[in-house]
Amino acid sequence: MSKGTVVLAYSGGLDTSCILVWLKEQGYDVITYLANIGQDEDFEAARKKAESLGAKKVFIEDLRSDFVEDFIWPSVQANAVYEDRYLLGTAIARPCIARRQVEIARKEGAQFVSHGATGKGNDQIRFELTCYALYPEVKIIAPWRIPEFYTRFRGRTDLMEYAQKHGIPVPVTPRAPWSMDANLMHISYESGILENPKSHAPADLYLMTKNPEDSPNVPDVLEIEFKNGVPVRVMHVKEGKSKETPLDIFSYLNEIGGKHGVGRIDIVENRFIGMKSRGIYETPGGTLLLKAHLDIETFTMDKEVRRIKQGLGIKFSELVYNGFWYSPECDFVRHCIAKSQENVEGKVQLSVFKGQVYVLGRESPKSLYNEELVSMDVQGDYDPCDASGFIRINAVRLVLLETKTTFCICCFSAFN
Amino acid sequence: MSKGTVVLAYSGGLDTSCILVWLKEQGYDVITYLANIGQDEDFEAARKKAESLGAKKVFIEDLRSDFVEDFIWPSVQANAVYEDRYLLGTAIARPCIARRQVEIARKEGAQFVSHGATGKGNDQIRFELTCYALYPEVKIIAPWRIPEFYTRFRGRTDLMEYAQKHGIPVPVTPRAPWSMDANLMHISYESGILENPKSHAPADLYLMTKNPEDSPNVPDVLEIEFKNGVPVRVMHVKEGKSKETPLDIFSYLNEIGGKHGVGRIDIVENRFIGMKSRGIYETPGGTLLLKAHLDIETFTMDKEVRRIKQGLGIKFSELVYNGFWYSPECDFVRHCIAKSQENVEGKVQLSVFKGQVYVLGRESPKSLYNEELVSMDVQGDYDPCDASGFIRINAVRLVLLETKTTFCICCFSAFN
Amino acid sequence: MSKGTVVLAYSGGLDTSCILVWLKEQGYDVITYLANIGQDEDFEAARKKAESLGAKKVFIEDLRSDFVEDFIWPSVQANAVYEDRYLLGTAIARPCIARRQVEIARKEGAQFVSHGATGKGNDQIRFELTCYALYPEVKIIAPWRIPEFYTRFRGRTDLMEYAQKHGIPVPVTPRAPWSMDANLMHISYESGILENPKSHAPADLYLMTKNPEDSPNVPDVLEIEFKNGVPVRVMHVKEGKSKETPLDIFSYLNEIGGKHGVGRIDIVENRFIGMKSRGIYETPGGTLLLKAHLDIETFTMDKEVRRIKQGLGIKFSELVYNGFWYSPECDFVRHCIAKSQENVEGKVQLSVFKGQVYVLGRESPKSLYNEELVSMDVQGDYDPCDASGFIRINAVRLVLLETKTTFCICCFSAFN
Amino acid sequence: MSKGTVVLAYSGGLDTSCILVWLKEQGYDVITYLANIGQDEDFEAARKKAESLGAKKVFIEDLRSDFVEDFIWPSVQANAVYEDRYLLGTAIARPCIARRQVEIARKEGAQFVSHGATGKGNDQIRFELTCYALYPEVKIIAPWRIPEFYTRFRGRTDLMEYAQKHGIPVPVTPRAPWSMDANLMHISYESGILENPKSHAPADLYLMTKNPEDSPNVPDVLEIEFKNGVPVRVMHVKEGKSKETPLDIFSYLNEIGGKHGVGRIDIVENRFIGMKSRGIYETPGGTLLLKAHLDIETFTMDKEVRRIKQGLGIKFSELVYNGFWYSPECDFVRHCIAKSQENVEGKVQLSVFKGQVYVLGRESPKSLYNEELVSMDVQGDYDPCDASGFIRINAVRLVLLETKTTFCICCFSAFN
Repeated sequence: MSKGTVVLAYSGGLDTSCILVWLKEQGYDVITYLANIGQDEDFEAARKKAESLGAKKVFIEDLRSDFVEDFIWPSVQANAVYEDRYLLGTAIARPCIARRQVEIARKEGAQFVSHGATGKGNDQIRFELTCYALYPEVKIIAPWRIPEFYTRFRGRTDLMEYAQKHGIPVPVTPRAPWSMDANLMHISYESGILENPKSHAPADLYLMTKNPEDSPNVPDVLEIEFKNGVPVRVMHVKEGKSKETPLDIFSYLNEIGGKHGVGRIDIVENRFIGMKSRGIYETPGGTLLLKAHLDIETFTMDKEVRRIKQGLGIKFSELVYNGFWYSPECDFVRHCIAKSQENVEGKVQLSVFKGQVYVLGRESPKSLYNEELVSMDVQGDYDPCDASGFIRINAVRLVLLETKTTFCICCFSAFN
Repeated sequence: MSKGTVVLAYSGGLDTSCILVWLKEQGYDVITYLANIGQDEDFEAARKKAESLGAKKVFIEDLRSDFVEDFIWPSVQANAVYEDRYLLGTAIARPCIARRQVEIARKEGAQFVSHGATGKGNDQIRFELTCYALYPEVKIIAPWRIPEFYTRFRGRTDLMEYAQKHGIPVPVTPRAPWSMDANLMHISYESGILENPKSHAPADLYLMTKNPEDSPNVPDVLEIEFKNGVPVRVMHVKEGKSKETPLDIFSYLNEIGGKHGVGRIDIVENRFIGMKSRGIYETPGGTLLLKAHLDIETFTMDKEVRRIKQGLGIKFSELVYNGFWYSPECDFVRHCIAKSQENVEGKVQLSVFKGQVYVLGRESPKSLYNEELVSMDVQGDYDPCDASGFIRINAVRLVLLETKTTFCICCFSAFN
Repeated sequence: MSKGTVVLAYSGGLDTSCILVWLKEQGYDVITYLANIGQDEDFEAARKKAESLGAKKVFIEDLRSDFVEDFIWPSVQANAVYEDRYLLGTAIARPCIARRQVEIARKEGAQFVSHGATGKGNDQIRFELTCYALYPEVKIIAPWRIPEFYTRFRGRTDLMEYAQKHGIPVPVTPRAPWSMDANLMHISYESGILENPKSHAPADLYLMTKNPEDSPNVPDVLEIEFKNGVPVRVMHVKEGKSKETPLDIFSYLNEIGGKHGVGRIDIVENRFIGMKSRGIYETPGGTLLLKAHLDIETFTMDKEVRRIKQGLGIKFSELVYNGFWYSPECDFVRHCIAKSQENVEGKVQLSVFKGQVYVLGRESPKSLYNEELVSMDVQGDYDPCDASGFIRINAVRLVLLETKTTFCICCFSAFN
Repeated sequence: MSKGTVVLAYSGGLDTSCILVWLKEQGYDVITYLANIGQDEDFEAARKKAESLGAKKVFIEDLRSDFVEDFIWPSVQANAVYEDRYLLGTAIARPCIARRQVEIARKEGAQFVSHGATGKGNDQIRFELTCYALYPEVKIIAPWRIPEFYTRFRGRTDLMEYAQKHGIPVPVTPRAPWSMDANLMHISYESGILENPKSHAPADLYLMTKNPEDSPNVPDVLEIEFKNGVPVRVMHVKEGKSKETPLDIFSYLNEIGGKHGVGRIDIVENRFIGMKSRGIYETPGGTLLLKAHLDIETFTMDKEVRRIKQGLGIKFSELVYNGFWYSPECDFVRHCIAKSQENVEGKVQLSVFKGQVYVLGRESPKSLYNEELVSMDVQGDYDPCDASGFIRINAVRLVLLETKTTFCICCFSAFN
């Protein structure tokens, strides 16, 4: 008698293979689900492995275009950056993966979903909040938070032993002394030897970007064209080559960014659950887009709208980092941000070289830049006398303060 | 009969030399004042020039240490960045310069101050708000906003002609087809041929940073030590060389950053007066410090304090950009930010290479990073089951929404 | 030879009558325009007066419905309150009036608009920013900022004298020792004897609300029904009387609120130009609506959406106060706020009595309130154990801090 | 063999009496602790009851002055209001109570603390976060979240039965069909018949405030004097009576506010755990202080400081509501707010009548109000022409937009 059906987010690796077998042991029917969001993976091998381990059904889903259009693009519009540095590559992948998992669960009549995320991380939250939001009645099995599972599997050795006993193929190559998570947007590295925040990352860690020391000595110049705040075309200026679908554009930006070693960061960040962790990320295409979008946005967006939108973008980033992609507030913020992008349109030229991205110039039919107005050589309609009034009115408060109050303005002390 | 005494912010250049003579023509006694804030200048030549043009007194003031300690350091604490990119190198120099100008005016009994800033820019505002805040009774003479001045001097030719007539030495080298402003923090370039936002900056524009294409092929590794959120020591890891006074530290960071081409940006920004302008900036040392400070700050500051402080830092940047360094609100924000920095202490190691800065690692006696807590291999006091409750409580709202309302969540549409 | 045509915002009073004549004296053709936004005024008398003084054309426009629907309703959605107390009754009337003024100017081919607002207030800004936004080429004549006007008319006596000389009828009743501004939303009182912030307002000042000491001793109970965050119906519960068009609804709320003395405040506020002023306001209907809207909004809006929207509402209030109703940022904010109101729907019952409004109860088909979930007597799906995990995860940071750092938490000092 | 010592927050009521006995049953030594924070209680009876039920020790602590000075005063400085209406009377009491509980636990060497708060409310969180922050090693026993407790006591009948079996005196008077929580700051009412958000509160519910229908027909006029943003004196203007210690001041404000029915609200609010609940509150003295503080603050604080501080106050309110009084971020915010209050000083006159508070006037030696500057009759240093420049510079953006872009400004549509 089955306890019910579980849709397990399956990676093909040791952990989720053990979970698959363990779930069966516990009396569940298991459907495995593996999302292709651009990671380097032998999907067919994973399919066979899952089948051989007794998966009732195996789903392998190509979500790459969905990922770019529904998750990366809104993040580009938002200039989404968590804690001033992290471009949220993992955070936006989780709701994308879980959304399909829930679709499968609904379609297959599964009451349960399961995943292999640990009990200390952000990913468990991102997965599960998505599941609860999209499938409120779902029951979630998170083995790494179930005492009988995590006390049985206290380390890799226990998993290996269990694997051998249950005919689960074990990896033959030694495991890297850190864990990683890869998708089209980025690769993240953490834990293991990286847990010491002082120790430097090994040079061979990075898989998506060239070491800038070994990258080409000649820049590539790209032109990215935006409409509604998202890229609609990228062109290699010298080669004349161009890409025009979202997936092609983003893949090409990854290629060029990766070739030049763009987008590596090493940070300590604050997890939602209140602990700090050290993470290393490489986000080549995303970094290019962030720089280009910031440029075209300021070029075409009113200053005060930009200010309000900047605040919304920070909010968006926090929400997404914390797992609230599918929440009314994130939906609301996304809507507002999308509204702000209606005129964010035009072309940005970038030079990509040795880990850096340099904006070279920009143009736009929707530009709010007025060359004549700003020119030092042209007076135009602008009357410089107006600035005198503007300044004096802005000073009304300041003058009053100095003469009227004893407000402690520490930096003024030099004058007494 | 003199109309009174003016303290003129004098650069030694053509414009302010003409202003000097013109002010005398108008009947003022003129005291010239030239601040050394780290720009490359022949100060003695400027002194002689001012004297020869009839300045009643000449002040040349070395404000470099003041500039670093009173203006750059608070900006480092704030992670001050305007519109996500500009490090405010000019904006923080203006109140520094004007503060001393006002001191001189008070000391010399001058009722007037004057400057050569144009009527379309931010600098006139930054200068004058500082003057009004610190010397409320002052009268400001801004010739570029006085019709009889600006209609008389409609372009460089008029100035040259006036100069020749009044014995003002005219520059013999041709002027660059853009204007620039230099100090210890940065050099900015704008106007002239740069006014076309699409045209690329010429390669020979930059004076403070090497072209990354020509910079060394070997990184330099620095260790920057912070206390109270400001650097107290920088060490070249290989060479063992170190600097310990604010001015030495900042100058050395400029040297290393400049050598590797760090800190170049090309942006369109929003001026306070509501027009967009294109600016190119190079901020080598400041860029190094921003990256290092962001790192050590997140390492040592509570997550939620960081979030509030981030908002205050954005506010600070806007205020400083707009000229409100000396205002009650900026004073308040500076105080709050300084408070937040009490534990921002520790060492950050950086690699500097080809225009980029890479954080390699960090350590701190005040770190809030808990390696044991975050470790995937150690359970410690942390009970993974708690995360289940945490997630489910966070989902209470989300579950309700789905089942209870018709809130339009557009991204959910895939499921219907 | 006319200098051109001016559309003058004309009130029928002494000031704008003098301005009318003075503008003609200066060589302009003058079209007068008087907006009916609900103030108590003899519009026909004003028309005749304007005609008799030589207005080329006279426009008297009933904008009451526009005012309610286009200006009051968005403010209700925003819970618009400036500096925590002022409901912006004047601030939202100005763009409403100026919008039509500009329409008339365009239609009549007038290059000029004029108004009688003083040079120290907010209204000049609100008027003129609206004009510049909607009619960028317009030229504005603000006599109270033109030296030849304001030095000629230094006080009321000068105006009276001028009036007598030019056949302008002068008021026979003595003027109140303060100035007032009235519209459908509120009456404001300021200046004159009210300029002393310590002196109490005279009891006979208020025209729109009864003194609560004299108001009925029995409450009225109203039920207000909202859709999309604006009222669509108000019903007097006992009398069964109801109103359903925007203008009727708002007028009825004014009637009931006024009868019970609701919405009187006496504040010192910060004008945009940086000076503080003392104002007394009575806003009966607006106060009722604010309370009712806050109630139904929290009842139907997700908590986190509410938080973001609250910030937008504060921003909206500042923008409107400062005169930026017609600006891209205010347009953006209004759009976002409107989006947030899609589910703000339902009925609120209020008791109105002696200057107070008491919410009695509310109901809504879109409520996110879940009586079963919140009930202390029903466990339902909610597992109290989850709260333990939720609290412990929220405490992770707090526990770390205490044991790991020396962060100065002053209030903890009691324990040492 | 004891399992250890528990300090139980004991109210003397049925629930915590049962918990006391149940904890002993489970093998704990129990110390009871009852905080006097101004609620109406027979503390000696509670002491005897606890002793008779086997408490090892009984602590009854008068925290009223602490509560006013350490918790109410900072909230007054912050203008603390949750969701625009709730004055946080319960939220600020919890950390006050828990702080002393933890002190006792430390002093008595107790490893455990316990409370009778339910598993769905905010109070459990407020209690426990305080305990974890101040005593990180503490273990918390929350019986209403322990399955063996809450499944045993499914309702009041079970508690009554248990009480009778264990000699716990049971209440003889019938219980009100709602629950309440009282302290010096307020009384809150919720649950039971109040859970239906549509049903009106019964007239006899309120204990702290008179029904305005029955309150005096003559106002009382008070003058409240502030220093550093907190009241230092309250005077009854007619009677000349005055109070000067924090506890006396606050108690007197409660008396006058209560006598006139001030501070009643009926709201639906969002709990931290994501559910909405209906609460009715009466906060007489707090409401008076909020109105008075808002007035004197705007009178003495710079406009832009006020704006920043307003945001911090909203943040403070959310933190306190959610239980984070003892957190680094709340500590930081409190520090910043306190800094902002340095000049908040002066006297406010209020009229209190029939549920309303009317500000009548204010004065302050630190006022930033400048009667001469604002006066319509005095020109002073202020040059009205400056306003023209100010307005035109503010319009630069707006004019550009209209002529240069197609930004969708919906409200402009009337003109096309």
